[in-house]
Amino acid sequence: MSEQNSAQSAVTVLGLGPMGRALAGAFLGAGLRTTVWNRTPGKDQELVRRGAVSAPSVVEAVAASPLTVVCVVNYDASDAILRSDAVTDALKGRTVVNLTADTPGRARDTADWAAGHGVRYLDGAIMTPTPTIGTPAGVFIHSGPEEVYQEHRPVLEALGGTHTHLGAEIGRAAAYDIALLDIFWTAMAGYAHALAVARAEGITARELAPFAKGIGDILPAIFEQTAEELDAGTYPGDGNPITSAVSSMSHIVHTSEAHGIDAGVMRAAEGLARRAVGLGHGADGFTRIAEILGRR
Amino acid sequence: MSEQNSAQSAVTVLGLGPMGRALAGAFLGAGLRTTVWNRTPGKDQELVRRGAVSAPSVVEAVAASPLTVVCVVNYDASDAILRSDAVTDALKGRTVVNLTADTPGRARDTADWAAGHGVRYLDGAIMTPTPTIGTPAGVFIHSGPEEVYQEHRPVLEALGGTHTHLGAEIGRAAAYDIALLDIFWTAMAGYAHALAVARAEGITARELAPFAKGIGDILPAIFEQTAEELDAGTYPGDGNPITSAVSSMSHIVHTSEAHGIDAGVMRAAEGLARRAVGLGHGADGFTRIAEILGRR
Ligand SMILES: NC(=O)c1ccc[n+]([C@@H]2O[C@H](COP(=O)([O-])OP(=O)(O)OC[C@H]3O[C@@H](n4cnc5c(N)ncnc54)[C@H](OP(=O)(O)O)[C@@H]3O)[C@@H](O)[C@H]2O)c1
Ligand SMILES: NC(=O)c1ccc[n+]([C@@H]2O[C@H](COP(=O)([O-])OP(=O)(O)OC[C@H]3O[C@@H](n4cnc5c(N)ncnc54)[C@H](OP(=O)(O)O)[C@@H]3O)[C@@H](O)[C@H]2O)c1
Repeated sequence: MSEQNSAQSAVTVLGLGPMGRALAGAFLGAGLRTTVWNRTPGKDQELVRRGAVSAPSVVEAVAASPLTVVCVVNYDASDAILRSDAVTDALKGRTVVNLTADTPGRARDTADWAAGHGVRYLDGAIMTPTPTIGTPAGVFIHSGPEEVYQEHRPVLEALGGTHTHLGAEIGRAAAYDIALLDIFWTAMAGYAHALAVARAEGITARELAPFAKGIGDILPAIFEQTAEELDAGTYPGDGNPITSAVSSMSHIVHTSEAHGIDAGVMRAAEGLARRAVGLGHGADGFTRIAEILGRR
Repeated sequence: MSEQNSAQSAVTVLGLGPMGRALAGAFLGAGLRTTVWNRTPGKDQELVRRGAVSAPSVVEAVAASPLTVVCVVNYDASDAILRSDAVTDALKGRTVVNLTADTPGRARDTADWAAGHGVRYLDGAIMTPTPTIGTPAGVFIHSGPEEVYQEHRPVLEALGGTHTHLGAEIGRAAAYDIALLDIFWTAMAGYAHALAVARAEGITARELAPFAKGIGDILPAIFEQTAEELDAGTYPGDGNPITSAVSSMSHIVHTSEAHGIDAGVMRAAEGLARRAVGLGHGADGFTRIAEILGRR
């Protein structure tokens, strides 16, 4: 941001959980006049020390800036904050960017509410953890009206990282977010389970970690390569057929349950793979499972 | 391998699936005299063109080399290949390295069989896909008697990549393998599901891929950091508490099922996270789930 922009720009952050605090901290770091509010008081102390204005109410918070960024646990929470008569009135003609994670349906519903009350609305999501905010490693996705996005882009870019506008359809950012969090949280569930099984086999997390990192290192390229397969509708299994995956999956379930460790996640994954085999696709690659999941 | 070693070294590969062919190809590429066998004939044609010797039977295959590498679908298959009287006799005094994936229990059972018949035995696993074999990117883990490993290490290292001897306990490589495949296949199941949900939302795999790669890119560091937490027995959730994960997980289930897409894997993962919340650990980080899974 240029000095001039910084001097003119003001932003409000509603929600001071770990991510809301990181966002407000990055805005402050970029020199923006930053107003903050959180349902439970006291979470703004460090931010206020760094120059943030603590608003005593949501109405006063949103009135302080042309742009309000919301980042709370879900849209039940953001609805509870935004959809009172007083707050809705105060937002008239202003812009809300909701960086809270929820479903595409909730984003569309919020856009309807915004349109009905003269509130300008963008939806967005944050794809990287709190330490990346304010650094080049942050990844933000946005959707909603192009002109609203372009107008507020300089302030949003003060958060650092890469910002991608995925299109005017308001649910688009949430749809990407859901798919990407699906990958993330499923992988994390697999990792937590692997740590438990390893420990039961006498392997410490520290011993497993360099090899676990190695598995993590091969995933991005596999994600990129197999994506092509789904769009093309061809699922070559010559390098690694689903039958081979099924065999490994059953070993994991067996070893886990032999130690009394719940294997429900892998049982469900194995079920998908076995269904693909049962449908005659055992010689295909794993991406075939995405196609089968989507069948009507 | 030095010229001299190559001239002296001979190796047999049993099993010519995608991985067995990759292993035999790498041995040939390193100049080793390579004998191959597969249950179903014909899979060795390309290898024979490159100089491999095609053995007409398992007995003749194992008799051709001091070291036999087995790589088939699982230990039911490797038992079917190795445990006939004729093959067991032919293996007396020779070494078998079983690079087939299975459970630690099966590796231990195979070690008992080997010890009872004067067969020298190492167990191992391959942690990277076929295109990495014969390149620096391959990752191999081994366990079993140190002196047997050291003796055959030069031949094994002809496969390229990194080789780690995890210890004398024969089940160790399989235990690592199970834990690492748990991470891999769970993550792949999450990715296949994410592709299906994205497609239902009108997002192509190619559009999702760069962001999916971005999720893959952040996993290795998260794996490394959270491993420390489990060993230390502290599960800081200040950056990203389990309650926040639960919220995202329920959005994924909801969006998936709204499109008629089975969400069993995420439902199981969400169940683990909700159990952690129910036990009073909602403010902890996700690694707490590994500790809970392992509770007796
Ligand atoms: N943390 C990360 O690494 C990360 C990464 C990417 C995206 N995100 C997303 O960012 C969003 C915020 O996450 P977070 O990490 O800051 O923590 P969080 O635990 O998801 O959210 C905590 C925030 O939500 C507020 N809240 C909850 N229920 C409320 C209600 N009924 N009314 C008003 N406020 C309510 C909390 O206020 P109180 O303090 O009053 O409880 C607090 O400000 C989530 O959607 C998350 O998925 C987080
Ligand atoms: N492919 C990879 O990317 C990869 C990566 C790491 C580890 N691995 C591991 O490497 C091993 C081999 O995998 P793969 O990819 O080559 O394919 P695979 O489908 O797991 O195994 C195919 C091989 O198993 C043989 N086989 C199956 N049942 C048999 C039986 N009852 N008796 C004798 N042979 C039998 C097949 O012989 P036929 O041709 O006669 O059916 C073929 O040689 C597996 O344990 C796998 O987990 C593979």
